[in-house]
Amino acid sequence: MDKNSFFWKVVDGTLPLPPCAMTLGTKFAEIDGELGTVEIKFEAKPEFLNPAGNVQGGFLAAMLDDTMGPALLATLDVGELAATVNLNVQFHRPAKAGLLAGKGRVVLRGKEICQLSGELFKNDKIVAAATATAVIRKM
Amino acid sequence: MDKNSFFWKVVDGTLPLPPCAMTLGTKFAEIDGELGTVEIKFEAKPEFLNPAGNVQGGFLAAMLDDTMGPALLATLDVGELAATVNLNVQFHRPAKAGLLAGKGRVVLRGKEICQLSGELFKNDKIVAAATATAVIRKM
Repeated sequence: MDKNSFFWKVVDGTLPLPPCAMTLGTKFAEIDGELGTVEIKFEAKPEFLNPAGNVQGGFLAAMLDDTMGPALLATLDVGELAATVNLNVQFHRPAKAGLLAGKGRVVLRGKEICQLSGELFKNDKIVAAATATAVIRKM
Repeated sequence: MDKNSFFWKVVDGTLPLPPCAMTLGTKFAEIDGELGTVEIKFEAKPEFLNPAGNVQGGFLAAMLDDTMGPALLATLDVGELAATVNLNVQFHRPAKAGLLAGKGRVVLRGKEICQLSGELFKNDKIVAAATATAVIRKM
């Protein structure tokens, strides 16, 4: 982990949030690059809703991807990047538009293969949970 | 399957596309409610991109959810709805912004539990594949 990495420059505001994170209304709350843990807030917008008026599952998946990814990104050195190769999401209850909170962690930090885990909450109730496999590559 | 269902009214234009489908640039290409198969076009927008300039995996997941869901929705009767309870996505190659094509199908059509499968292509090359489990509920 190196605070000069691309990710940390986004966190400290030197670089802008990527477009996908802007779209999801991402705000970093807590990040620990030594532990590989993050807490991130999201804003589920009206344009993410399905016909039932709930956030479409895919957008919850996008938020979980954007929770687990940063948990790993926070641990990277300069010149490393991470790519998600598998994402598995369990949907527990529907969520209306508004604030959602993601908690993500690195479960296994290999030199190349990493296993990640995360949950998404609304008003402290779990909405969805996920695991992901990611690989670290040198740029 | 009943062409008076909510889903088919969206397909024939009687009802508008839901917001999440609008956001993903969804356009129905082929839908077979007897077979439970669909082909759907998506528009990956610049606001879905990650720092590498590729569509963030979560938005690919959202498109796959919005491919497999309609495959099942096309088979429903009036007064039925479907909810995805699990989504598993494998990411095969990165995709830039622009047109993506989803192909989805119902693998198992139970009375309640259904198993779905789908793939997402860019220029006829596979970008990501997914399976999902969904449940049918009476409204």
